[in-house]
Amino acid sequence: MTGLLAPGSHRATDQVDDAALVAAMLRVETAWARALVVAGLVDGDAADVVERAAVTLRPDPGALLADTELAGNPVVPLVSRLRDSVVAAGGDADAVHRGLTSQDVLDTALVLLARDALRRVRDGLAATADHLAGLARTHRDSVMAGRTLTQHAVPTTFGLKAAQWLAGIDDAADGVDAALDQLPAQYGGAAGTRALVAHLAPDADPTDVATAFAAGLGLRPALPWQTRRGTVTGIGDALTSATDALGSLAADVLLLGRPEVGELREGAAAGRGGSSTMPHKRNPVLAVLVRAAALQAPQLSAQLHLASASGVDERPDGAWHAEWPALQRLLELAVTAASQAAELAAGLEVDSAAMAARAEGAAEALLAESGGTGDVRDHLGEAGATTDAILEDHDARAARRG
Amino acid sequence: MTGLLAPGSHRATDQVDDAALVAAMLRVETAWARALVVAGLVDGDAADVVERAAVTLRPDPGALLADTELAGNPVVPLVSRLRDSVVAAGGDADAVHRGLTSQDVLDTALVLLARDALRRVRDGLAATADHLAGLARTHRDSVMAGRTLTQHAVPTTFGLKAAQWLAGIDDAADGVDAALDQLPAQYGGAAGTRALVAHLAPDADPTDVATAFAAGLGLRPALPWQTRRGTVTGIGDALTSATDALGSLAADVLLLGRPEVGELREGAAAGRGGSSTMPHKRNPVLAVLVRAAALQAPQLSAQLHLASASGVDERPDGAWHAEWPALQRLLELAVTAASQAAELAAGLEVDSAAMAARAEGAAEALLAESGGTGDVRDHLGEAGATTDAILEDHDARAARRG
Amino acid sequence: MTGLLAPGSHRATDQVDDAALVAAMLRVETAWARALVVAGLVDGDAADVVERAAVTLRPDPGALLADTELAGNPVVPLVSRLRDSVVAAGGDADAVHRGLTSQDVLDTALVLLARDALRRVRDGLAATADHLAGLARTHRDSVMAGRTLTQHAVPTTFGLKAAQWLAGIDDAADGVDAALDQLPAQYGGAAGTRALVAHLAPDADPTDVATAFAAGLGLRPALPWQTRRGTVTGIGDALTSATDALGSLAADVLLLGRPEVGELREGAAAGRGGSSTMPHKRNPVLAVLVRAAALQAPQLSAQLHLASASGVDERPDGAWHAEWPALQRLLELAVTAASQAAELAAGLEVDSAAMAARAEGAAEALLAESGGTGDVRDHLGEAGATTDAILEDHDARAARRG
Amino acid sequence: MTGLLAPGSHRATDQVDDAALVAAMLRVETAWARALVVAGLVDGDAADVVERAAVTLRPDPGALLADTELAGNPVVPLVSRLRDSVVAAGGDADAVHRGLTSQDVLDTALVLLARDALRRVRDGLAATADHLAGLARTHRDSVMAGRTLTQHAVPTTFGLKAAQWLAGIDDAADGVDAALDQLPAQYGGAAGTRALVAHLAPDADPTDVATAFAAGLGLRPALPWQTRRGTVTGIGDALTSATDALGSLAADVLLLGRPEVGELREGAAAGRGGSSTMPHKRNPVLAVLVRAAALQAPQLSAQLHLASASGVDERPDGAWHAEWPALQRLLELAVTAASQAAELAAGLEVDSAAMAARAEGAAEALLAESGGTGDVRDHLGEAGATTDAILEDHDARAARRG
Repeated sequence: MTGLLAPGSHRATDQVDDAALVAAMLRVETAWARALVVAGLVDGDAADVVERAAVTLRPDPGALLADTELAGNPVVPLVSRLRDSVVAAGGDADAVHRGLTSQDVLDTALVLLARDALRRVRDGLAATADHLAGLARTHRDSVMAGRTLTQHAVPTTFGLKAAQWLAGIDDAADGVDAALDQLPAQYGGAAGTRALVAHLAPDADPTDVATAFAAGLGLRPALPWQTRRGTVTGIGDALTSATDALGSLAADVLLLGRPEVGELREGAAAGRGGSSTMPHKRNPVLAVLVRAAALQAPQLSAQLHLASASGVDERPDGAWHAEWPALQRLLELAVTAASQAAELAAGLEVDSAAMAARAEGAAEALLAESGGTGDVRDHLGEAGATTDAILEDHDARAARRG
Repeated sequence: MTGLLAPGSHRATDQVDDAALVAAMLRVETAWARALVVAGLVDGDAADVVERAAVTLRPDPGALLADTELAGNPVVPLVSRLRDSVVAAGGDADAVHRGLTSQDVLDTALVLLARDALRRVRDGLAATADHLAGLARTHRDSVMAGRTLTQHAVPTTFGLKAAQWLAGIDDAADGVDAALDQLPAQYGGAAGTRALVAHLAPDADPTDVATAFAAGLGLRPALPWQTRRGTVTGIGDALTSATDALGSLAADVLLLGRPEVGELREGAAAGRGGSSTMPHKRNPVLAVLVRAAALQAPQLSAQLHLASASGVDERPDGAWHAEWPALQRLLELAVTAASQAAELAAGLEVDSAAMAARAEGAAEALLAESGGTGDVRDHLGEAGATTDAILEDHDARAARRG
Repeated sequence: MTGLLAPGSHRATDQVDDAALVAAMLRVETAWARALVVAGLVDGDAADVVERAAVTLRPDPGALLADTELAGNPVVPLVSRLRDSVVAAGGDADAVHRGLTSQDVLDTALVLLARDALRRVRDGLAATADHLAGLARTHRDSVMAGRTLTQHAVPTTFGLKAAQWLAGIDDAADGVDAALDQLPAQYGGAAGTRALVAHLAPDADPTDVATAFAAGLGLRPALPWQTRRGTVTGIGDALTSATDALGSLAADVLLLGRPEVGELREGAAAGRGGSSTMPHKRNPVLAVLVRAAALQAPQLSAQLHLASASGVDERPDGAWHAEWPALQRLLELAVTAASQAAELAAGLEVDSAAMAARAEGAAEALLAESGGTGDVRDHLGEAGATTDAILEDHDARAARRG
Repeated sequence: MTGLLAPGSHRATDQVDDAALVAAMLRVETAWARALVVAGLVDGDAADVVERAAVTLRPDPGALLADTELAGNPVVPLVSRLRDSVVAAGGDADAVHRGLTSQDVLDTALVLLARDALRRVRDGLAATADHLAGLARTHRDSVMAGRTLTQHAVPTTFGLKAAQWLAGIDDAADGVDAALDQLPAQYGGAAGTRALVAHLAPDADPTDVATAFAAGLGLRPALPWQTRRGTVTGIGDALTSATDALGSLAADVLLLGRPEVGELREGAAAGRGGSSTMPHKRNPVLAVLVRAAALQAPQLSAQLHLASASGVDERPDGAWHAEWPALQRLLELAVTAASQAAELAAGLEVDSAAMAARAEGAAEALLAESGGTGDVRDHLGEAGATTDAILEDHDARAARRG
């Protein structure tokens, strides 16, 4: 959890902080104990002991951090503690983690965190989209100045602007849904051959074991992907595409909310946007924070690709480790931004009279293309039809998502 | 075209250099003239004149560069030259570019370049994959040391290693195919409302015009996406995922080809890999260049996302422009790397005896997990079955792609 | 603080976490109260009250996070709490923060955090350098194979290799020192004009006020730099240059420590580098983590430059905010990596016999350049002299630093 | 050279394109032939032959590209052609490149390109700074609204705004000057030991040889830095800091030049900023392009750091190659942007009446901090004094630079 320097990141704490990670790793170990039952290596009672130990384990954070550095990852010390708990409860140490490798646990746990985060992002995008759809409908015919390269271009409508934001966000939401559909468990064993289970339980059907493991976590069973990181980069690309779309919305809100423009305004909320020194100010805090998030996500996503591109051996010597904080931060960032954007969209104040007044005042410039004069409203081309098409598409997507 | 500092980039010249761009922009203008026929604004003969002028236009490169800076993009000066040619040929200047905006032309032209490049990347990936499939088949049971965090782990096979490279590349190829399926034309007019055609041809069916334009280029008709850049970032993500997969292959080749390891060797070719001073050297040039490409793509892709995240107004003031060179370079890089990787995979020399000797020599360490002794070949777990599954999947994908 | 997914980051907690940030912001507010005494706007007793309140303030973390998001930055809610404390202690609310702006406080507090972190990084680099100097001295004449593009080139010495690492780290340490020399306080008031103090205390010498403020924190007084972010990017560049140098060391350690090479080995430590499943393994954990850090810093530094490049108005609408988590994370990363690298260098085990045996075994290749045969030790060129020169330079720098 | 997709990049062609690179590599080879005279390995006449051959060599670009890929870098094929020319002229092939390695030549040649580019950037920054100094002087007391987080804050002056741009650019120019002061030649031989010259000319003073080589190119003699890339990252950081400062200027120009603000306007130039469809438009092309450059440089600079961080062996297997196109592109980008910015600053049209009218109209908000009413000009704090201080500093720096 980033904290004070990432305002709003507390919205994402439950999805991404160390406690969530520990819980996820323990869920993975529990699911594995159940899979070992399928393999015939552990009996059901022993797996029960593991599950109870996992549910109640509360490792000391400081010691866990120190031991994590010694091991190079948090799985080794967590497994050690879990084994101790199991043994203390009269259970079998061999029922814990046997046949897995650290990467199996950490990769799968990060996928679980990502799933929770992706769902939260999807919810935030959906809420944002619904609010924007409302704005697009309401302002389908609200004329405003179109602007290109900062200058007035031709007339457009606020409905179309809102619809374009909406279409971008709906596209991003599709990407998030696609990422959610694909989430695999990781199970490869020490070097991707799943050798230990095969060795210990030669008669077990290996596919059954892998399937049970994944099913216990609600994930897709998959061949080992320890050095194929498309799952991770795919999550990153989907989240970054989401913050891209939100960033575009925020950037427009910030520009149109400048006092000299005055066509949009971020909604007021008690205590929001005050200045430490200027009592009159109402800063567009949500838009600023969403925009800041959009400026950060691409570097984090690039980090994931760089790690993927440097995958060597059966587990790489640093590239894998370089993934972790970038993925965690990107999850946090996207959950936060999507949640903030939903509030931003919900509260957005539209001054359509100011829009119309400006468009009319700038009519000469706005109509120069068509050489024409007349009412700016008569030169809106397919603005309305495009708005309608995007709204129709949104309704279809929303229905599909349920 | 990057040239001497991007060795091999001449493989991509025809897809991405300025000449290819000019040709693509002229194809777009021609397709638009045909669309204006559908709109009833231009007659077929006038469109013919545009096409002939476009096909023969050879603008002076230096003057075009200078005028491009004045205009801020290459479309304005190219349209001006095309209009002059059309008029000189007795045609109608109004048959050129009317109702379009610079962004329509440049975005669509870049999509055309991207399509050519994506196809070349797909071909390179497919060829690479086929060679790797051959290696995986041949070496399905060639034992080698598995390595994690640089150290010996458990035994694996070279077949599985090749299969894992293959699976990564096949996944990336799916992403490239998906990107190819989605490629849209851009047509929005000055600010995304398509106002001018609607104004000039109020009786024309706007959908017919947009459809004709896209169909003339073999692209998908689409609502204006001038500030929604998912198309561009999607291309970038697909290409970067491809170079990721190739980079992982190259990194392994480089490690396993070190003289102290000696399990793989890049194929020899006349004149390749020589040193300027050490006559004995045979440097793994292709692997080095592919790896270098994989280290570059993520930053270029991040550039595309950053541009997307900063989209404002109906055309942004710099973010759009920041996309162009990054996209061009990324296309060049990915085409080059995929082509080089295919050669690398085709020529890869596998020393399975060295692999086996090393695995046997390191048996004690490699078998420590299972506490066991014995033949390393008896501890390969599901290496063979995983190899088979990946090969089967590859065959299915290859068949699907035709 | 990143935690479990950034192993070793607990080494940096005290420098960079939220508690450190809150403490630094309160130090800034205290120094400002003292500066207001110089301005004649506050009497010494009132400043004492502020200081006591600041020293004892322990804001509730959860509430502070929530209010931080409302305000868009942590200064507004912290000032509010500090004012309440001061009033509760019978002090004067006007002695708190008057004439400052949030950015003054946060920028200056981040400079204080950076100072602590830079000093820790410098210490880590110095310790690393000293250990490497020892290795370079000891192994001045230890012959080993030189390697270029993964292949054997000509003979070199481990002394020269260690000396080259050393030179890179000494250069980086110079950069860190230079960054430390320049650290400025930020004081500009609401929009960089310092208007309020001038308004309230027209007879005070504004330079005296700014100087007192900076002196109270041991920083350089400076003109307002709210939209000139060279201070921040300079810190980032210095830290990234440090992790670059450390990354190069780590990458070499990892390669030379592969079992097939066996020329270096990371030192053993109780509990370090174990595997969750393979008892024999001794993973080069420190090198892996340092290398992972080096792969992350460039993106964080790029984030700082991107923010700097987007500075608008008298305080930007998102670019400033995008700086914070990147800077915090980069501080954490560099402190951690420098500390880990010092341990790595201290414990590095050199197998000079293995180096010599390999060089001798590869003599034919290594001597091909000179067409010669004979002892590889007779073809070391200026390896020794270069090692000496770097060591001499190191001694001079170490003496200069005291 | 990037070309049409990097408008204005033709400004930089002579510094950075392949022809410039070939010329620089040939200059390096010539300087080396002269250094071999100092070593006593070549006589002066033979070096003259090399120089004449180098001056007249015009390698076929296509063949050179193809051979560059085979070799992995452009030095090997260029040396081969140079040797052929020398032999054809009756000279001695051994007078060419003997004792160097490809990396020596390419690194040194890139330093020469960088020197030319850095000088051009410095000139562009200096010209920009001088124009901004003029604006700051003229508008020292031109009141305008201060803006933070997009909203009106307190009054400021355009003089202070221009002065802050100026200070940022002067700081960046100092960084460019510092980079220029440090530029080293690269000479290490095959693996950084300079072994071949020592072997062939045991009686020569190696320092004399290295010094002569560097002096012949006007560079600093230096110990080999083949795997220490601080020179390259230092160039990148300096250039990115320059584009950061220019980007901040451009972003402000774009905002203040929006029609709703109307306080600044990019100067008109024949043919500049026209639209392909809207005849009235005058797009702020220079500001857009400078801003786009500023959005691109950070990723390129990150690329250089990533390459540096991955340096292994005596020459890395990909990281070195990943540097080249990023450095070339960054040089091109910075030269172009600095040159464009100088034009932008020279032509900037300031509407101080509009500034004043807006500040007066917004007086209530702008004066809220001080609780005051009255003339906004009475609340400018140290705006004037800060402007003066920056101008004085600029004059001192300009005098120092001569």
